[in-house]
Amino acid sequence: MSETELQMDSSAPEPQLDEDDRLRPEFVHAVLDAVHAGDSARAHTLAEPLHPADIADLVELAPTEERAALVAAIADLIDGDVLAEMNDWVREALVESLTATQVADIAAELDTDDAVAIIEDMDVEDQREVLRALDPDDRAAIEEALSYPEESAGRLMQRELIAVPEHWTVGDVLDYLRKNEDLTTDFWEIFVVDPAHKPVGTCQLSWVLRTPRVVSMGDVMKREQTLIPVDMDQEEVALRFQKYALISAAVIDPSGRLVGMITVDDVVHIISEEAGEDILRLSGAGEGDINEPVVDSYKGRVRWLLTNLLTALVAATIISLFEGTIQKMVALAALMPIVAGVGGNAGTQTMAVTVRALATNQLTQSNTLRAIRREISIAVLNGLTVACVIGTAVGLFFHHAALGGVIAAAMLTNIVIAGLAGVIVPLTLDRLKADPAVASSIFVTMTTDSMGFLAFLGLATASGLVG
Amino acid sequence: MSETELQMDSSAPEPQLDEDDRLRPEFVHAVLDAVHAGDSARAHTLAEPLHPADIADLVELAPTEERAALVAAIADLIDGDVLAEMNDWVREALVESLTATQVADIAAELDTDDAVAIIEDMDVEDQREVLRALDPDDRAAIEEALSYPEESAGRLMQRELIAVPEHWTVGDVLDYLRKNEDLTTDFWEIFVVDPAHKPVGTCQLSWVLRTPRVVSMGDVMKREQTLIPVDMDQEEVALRFQKYALISAAVIDPSGRLVGMITVDDVVHIISEEAGEDILRLSGAGEGDINEPVVDSYKGRVRWLLTNLLTALVAATIISLFEGTIQKMVALAALMPIVAGVGGNAGTQTMAVTVRALATNQLTQSNTLRAIRREISIAVLNGLTVACVIGTAVGLFFHHAALGGVIAAAMLTNIVIAGLAGVIVPLTLDRLKADPAVASSIFVTMTTDSMGFLAFLGLATASGLVG
Repeated sequence: MSETELQMDSSAPEPQLDEDDRLRPEFVHAVLDAVHAGDSARAHTLAEPLHPADIADLVELAPTEERAALVAAIADLIDGDVLAEMNDWVREALVESLTATQVADIAAELDTDDAVAIIEDMDVEDQREVLRALDPDDRAAIEEALSYPEESAGRLMQRELIAVPEHWTVGDVLDYLRKNEDLTTDFWEIFVVDPAHKPVGTCQLSWVLRTPRVVSMGDVMKREQTLIPVDMDQEEVALRFQKYALISAAVIDPSGRLVGMITVDDVVHIISEEAGEDILRLSGAGEGDINEPVVDSYKGRVRWLLTNLLTALVAATIISLFEGTIQKMVALAALMPIVAGVGGNAGTQTMAVTVRALATNQLTQSNTLRAIRREISIAVLNGLTVACVIGTAVGLFFHHAALGGVIAAAMLTNIVIAGLAGVIVPLTLDRLKADPAVASSIFVTMTTDSMGFLAFLGLATASGLVG
Repeated sequence: MSETELQMDSSAPEPQLDEDDRLRPEFVHAVLDAVHAGDSARAHTLAEPLHPADIADLVELAPTEERAALVAAIADLIDGDVLAEMNDWVREALVESLTATQVADIAAELDTDDAVAIIEDMDVEDQREVLRALDPDDRAAIEEALSYPEESAGRLMQRELIAVPEHWTVGDVLDYLRKNEDLTTDFWEIFVVDPAHKPVGTCQLSWVLRTPRVVSMGDVMKREQTLIPVDMDQEEVALRFQKYALISAAVIDPSGRLVGMITVDDVVHIISEEAGEDILRLSGAGEGDINEPVVDSYKGRVRWLLTNLLTALVAATIISLFEGTIQKMVALAALMPIVAGVGGNAGTQTMAVTVRALATNQLTQSNTLRAIRREISIAVLNGLTVACVIGTAVGLFFHHAALGGVIAAAMLTNIVIAGLAGVIVPLTLDRLKADPAVASSIFVTMTTDSMGFLAFLGLATASGLVG
């Protein structure tokens, strides 16, 4: 159990933290000033009362070039709990600066999942060195975890858990837990297993506490349980925890034997990451982590911008087909981005709703058609409203009713097309087992841009508005 | 404890669920077909083995007009656990169709937080009727919860918890828990309180189980604890749970007394919602729930589209200033959306990264300047790359080096401006205590559109490219 959690209380707020639990800038400055002045003792005194999560934040908030000096000053505070809470990029750089023995010492005090999180990012040579420095038990546990695919339940689980046979009584369990000092102290449920070590039930600790010693575990446990296959993707693990409101769950190997346990605190940050990732993917911002090196962020983002450049060229080509029309009435050039732009917004709205509904498993085959019909209805209502407003405004401003009519008709058309594209593109990508958040906006924007220009300039030409 | 959790296992998957834990469409059809055919017994048999979360999904997946018949057929399966798992819109419609006594019966069997979730959406008259039908204890608890602001810790907490004095021994606690049948069966930590009922420590159940009977709770508990003020916003509660990896936490009133407990399973869906909300807010899609009535979605979205229409008019006005230039070289009209569009994408990327970093408390005053410098560096790299590509392509295609130079310069300018706007707009809104996800994209898009057209057409004019 962590010894350094801080007291928080509305009546006596922590001086280091602001109302949103973020480290105050003055506090961060004070620590860095002490480090600058070579006063390690003062930096240490300031940082010591912090929770591991806040020490991790402190290192992240320090400028990159000052982190080494800061870490040196508070070295003994940077334990496994702090590393486990640290941003991946910052931790990776920090771990690289440590020796294999130092990393092994830190890994040895952690649960398997946290130890794996620290070791998995190292390159193979360094990994091997750290593993050699570990004692055989820890080493075997971590090597096995590393043998599972990245981002799978096997990487996420800890091997430290409590499993007991069904015939044991509550008294047997209490005696077992009190007498065996080596057992883990942090667990929320006890797993009941058969002689082949396959889970047959789960027992919340509160049930054990409320039951007399003589009752057998088989009568306390719940037989229905949610089991996690060891190769399950972490996103699915997170959805399962969320859906069934789990606190912990047994992880089983392909033969059904209990091999580990995942607890909700390991899953909470995945739930948050996965839910937050969609916004970054839709915008093509890659990992979107502010601690990522600039060059990596650049590579991730420029690829997306160049793809968008291609789709913008499609729209430009469509416009160029109507250069004759624009030449005759150059006001069309000023008005056409309105049709494309508002259509793009309408498409993005529908797309965001669809991507979220897919990500949260709310949108399935059973209600696909209904969702499409729903989006069309909203698009028609939106289209009619916006078309009336822009049609009237343009008609009045240019004293040109036909121009108002053309832009209104183009706007209605483009918003309805945008609504269709916004729901059908992500659904299709999902059906094709592609991530709808990654590629949807390219297709949707290309559609709303091209169709916006085509509808407006095409109608202007066909209606005989010009010439 | 829920009696109906289902067994899940990689070797023997549930026939009703697909690999992502979603109800299979064939299963949903089978249930609805039975309801259609008037065969309630069959519908009931099919639905009975489902987990409450899946029964809730079944009702959500049924078309709106068939839900009443479905719910009638499986009425006794729709208990409080099912309602607690149900989408807000679907539950609200369902609860409206029940009598006050039926709602009161359901609320009585739930923890305070779940009961409040069901009752808080009803209109005041119906609420009053349900409260009258409850027994006085439940009624007092729910009335008190309703007195706290919506989306506050007070609404989220349950009053059912275990609190014991510091001088009690582990043996005293075991006896107390075994002898008092009325106590809650679902808790993960025991709160230790002083005579004024103020929390002095928290004790994980695993620590109680591993400690001999004679040890006093004061020696088992952890004194440092994370307390939640009753009026704290649920988003902050969620961030605090996430940051400190909490399983449960004590809720205190302004005088510091223990009034309730929040458990992580109540917070997990908030973490997911809050993280997923940003994408909907950035796109102006309002609540973005596919179960929201069409008219409500329309109202939420059209407001955003009309606002965007105004910003598009700004861009159109800028273009109209250059009608003379376009008249002379109509190819500019085809090329200008490229500059605006790719700039818009670059702005959206930076904005998405900034909004996420703010939402996860990674971006604070301490590293603001560094984040801005970082985004400028990335923008310059992106700008140079895209400018080279488009400049060369346009120069070659039009056999017009100056035109290539102009579009390259405009593109670089707009991408750098986009990067600046993408980081500074959300930061400013956050500093002004506004939600950066809500208004950022309006300002950023307006900037990238206007500046894209201004830079390109302005440079084309100033460089003497035309005329």
